[in-house]
Amino acid sequence: MGNGCSRVRVEIVAVGSELLLGQIPDTNSQWLGEQLAAHGLTSHFHQHVGDNLERMVLAFRTALARSDAVIVCGGLGPTQDDITRAAIAEVMNVTLVRDDSIVEEIRAMFASRGRTMPDNNLLQADVPVGANIIAQTRGTAPGLICPIGQKVLYAVPGVPYEMSDMFERAILPDLLIRQRARGERAVITSRVLRTWGSSESALAEALADRFSELEQGGRVTIAFLASGIEGIKVRLTARGDDRAMAQSLLDDEEGVVRALIAERLGDVIFGVDDETMEDAIASRLRARGLTLAVAESLTGGLIASRLVNVAGASAWFRGGVVSYASQVKFDVLHVPEGPVVSSEAATAMAVGVRALMASDVSVSVTGVAGPESQDGHAPGTVFVGLDLEGETSFVQLRLPGDRPRVRAYSAISALDALRRALDRHGDPAPVP
Amino acid sequence: MGNGCSRVRVEIVAVGSELLLGQIPDTNSQWLGEQLAAHGLTSHFHQHVGDNLERMVLAFRTALARSDAVIVCGGLGPTQDDITRAAIAEVMNVTLVRDDSIVEEIRAMFASRGRTMPDNNLLQADVPVGANIIAQTRGTAPGLICPIGQKVLYAVPGVPYEMSDMFERAILPDLLIRQRARGERAVITSRVLRTWGSSESALAEALADRFSELEQGGRVTIAFLASGIEGIKVRLTARGDDRAMAQSLLDDEEGVVRALIAERLGDVIFGVDDETMEDAIASRLRARGLTLAVAESLTGGLIASRLVNVAGASAWFRGGVVSYASQVKFDVLHVPEGPVVSSEAATAMAVGVRALMASDVSVSVTGVAGPESQDGHAPGTVFVGLDLEGETSFVQLRLPGDRPRVRAYSAISALDALRRALDRHGDPAPVP
Repeated sequence: MGNGCSRVRVEIVAVGSELLLGQIPDTNSQWLGEQLAAHGLTSHFHQHVGDNLERMVLAFRTALARSDAVIVCGGLGPTQDDITRAAIAEVMNVTLVRDDSIVEEIRAMFASRGRTMPDNNLLQADVPVGANIIAQTRGTAPGLICPIGQKVLYAVPGVPYEMSDMFERAILPDLLIRQRARGERAVITSRVLRTWGSSESALAEALADRFSELEQGGRVTIAFLASGIEGIKVRLTARGDDRAMAQSLLDDEEGVVRALIAERLGDVIFGVDDETMEDAIASRLRARGLTLAVAESLTGGLIASRLVNVAGASAWFRGGVVSYASQVKFDVLHVPEGPVVSSEAATAMAVGVRALMASDVSVSVTGVAGPESQDGHAPGTVFVGLDLEGETSFVQLRLPGDRPRVRAYSAISALDALRRALDRHGDPAPVP
Repeated sequence: MGNGCSRVRVEIVAVGSELLLGQIPDTNSQWLGEQLAAHGLTSHFHQHVGDNLERMVLAFRTALARSDAVIVCGGLGPTQDDITRAAIAEVMNVTLVRDDSIVEEIRAMFASRGRTMPDNNLLQADVPVGANIIAQTRGTAPGLICPIGQKVLYAVPGVPYEMSDMFERAILPDLLIRQRARGERAVITSRVLRTWGSSESALAEALADRFSELEQGGRVTIAFLASGIEGIKVRLTARGDDRAMAQSLLDDEEGVVRALIAERLGDVIFGVDDETMEDAIASRLRARGLTLAVAESLTGGLIASRLVNVAGASAWFRGGVVSYASQVKFDVLHVPEGPVVSSEAATAMAVGVRALMASDVSVSVTGVAGPESQDGHAPGTVFVGLDLEGETSFVQLRLPGDRPRVRAYSAISALDALRRALDRHGDPAPVP
């Protein structure tokens, strides 16, 4: 393993009785695990512990005994339940001292929302002596960096949005400094190719030969991550002696993998890393200077809400109609009266919304979410309508799953159909 | 602590490097935590550990030192990675012996699927000396019940479908026998009150006196769960000698807590347990026989997509317009040309969509998601418009967070405004 031994071992301790009782999923440990791995840091253990002082102290001590750094998530709130600060003070064998500058910051945050700070929030300004503060930018509780001998314990709020901000801003940089101080130079990078429209086993077959070429424990690895309604991700990971080497290994591998997938499965890769299907739509519309409108039945606004998540959507997104009741399809979108789950209805919805919203292109969805059949179609039957500057078409789909899954699959499938149609639409005429 | 001390403390250890790397969520620990709580068993710690013999042994020993029973999930498969059996043998200080009857069962299971058993699967027939078998009914790996002094370690496959079957069939009955042997009879139940519109600290203050009345380690406890964009949950938990007593304690406590919250914070409780804000809207519309339409700007379809998630939404939901571009507001919803982030625009959107969709009531949202200001309003400024059978009103909000949060908060805030308006609208005229 060579360099492996010098890597900083990070243990995650998620605090909260609700985790032990199974009332909420622990998404924080999963997210942190992913981030640590992506940065070449290693994690051998995670723990969950409830809101109990004695057991928190035991969990923190256990973690410090077997790891080099501990990230504690949760228990920094303003209520009597929130005793992470007290548990850390006990582990550090110090007292808690109220920090006046934090008090003022919390007071100012409440004031900016036109509210008075409740006295409870004063607890959030208590800091174990010797700990450093991670300033809060999104909530009220600051995070903590607590040196304990050569080791370190970080504490962050359990709210994912506050946790991730503090991790990226303060904890990750600190961990990377500790890692470099140990002489660890290997850089691990990964890249995710996002696919829609093929199964995990079809992708595995397409890449089977490549899998056997890549030696076990070598510098490059390939893995699949099934991401439910967001398709299958193919993750390429490379370990280089420096960043440039890791990047170059990744670039080469991406070329090999893309060629194999394109040859066997066609145009199923829609994005890289964090690029979503709606990002893929946005870049195509922007490049061609086209505007978009959507008409949704069973998806009920899901497609529109995905599109407005893209920064700068107002440049190309006009809007949409959620025609849930059939009468709304007839009256607002001028769909001919008749069965509303059909290719004709889908196309008419696309034409209708494009006219209503005065957009260049449009996409529509109508179908059966289930559990009952409709218009003689089984649940999962979905029609996508497209109108690209007057050129209409439709795609018929047969989607698996219960109501929420059919609806979510319909939304991404419709966007994928639009992506492929835009690529065909935008193709230059072939030279004869 | 009374009965608390006699409860069997169960620790869950989920095995698998993919959990540490964040490649898959740990749904097993959550499910098991819920099951244990529902049966009056207690869990103080969970751990994740990777597929490494030394670290698995350490994790199992740590768990056995601080808990009475340990459930190990995962690492029972047929590959070189699957070393849970070996780690248990080391903890028990015994050897592994191949069990011929298990070999025959696995061979028969492959034969029944028309396949030959690969040699790898022989590993699954290895059993630590002194362990009992949990017969497999859904896969190939049997589970294990390993007595260790007065304590016990169970091992089950990580496949949720096999794990849950073995838990219900063998582990839960064994745990309940152990619990009864300690004289423990308690049944624990909990109920969640879901609130929107007050902060965690305001709720904590409203309930502060009640907190101090409830003795530590008593039969009833109150806790808060911040659920991000779904508001704050107040969880009431009761421990009774039987189910009827636990339910009755919960009913009484719910009455006390509801009265305190109503007195201090008003009508902030919108649901119980799994009831969502859209469920609260649905039940009010159904009770009054009213239909609904929505007009959305910055929320971009989020409100509509939440509403269609409710089973039977077609009975009361007509549809919606996502008027993202200003021109769509003017042309489709007949909003007077001018600033589109204003109370006038919000009200006009509600009136416009109610007319377009021929619904009884409507709700609209317009505002600034950010990061830039618009029409002289800072990001987070949101106007909700309402039209209840011709009676129009608006609510102005100031919401925190970045774009996605402002948008998500806007959606639930708009639904909450509609909930409150429907309650006022539906109030019988006061008797003079």
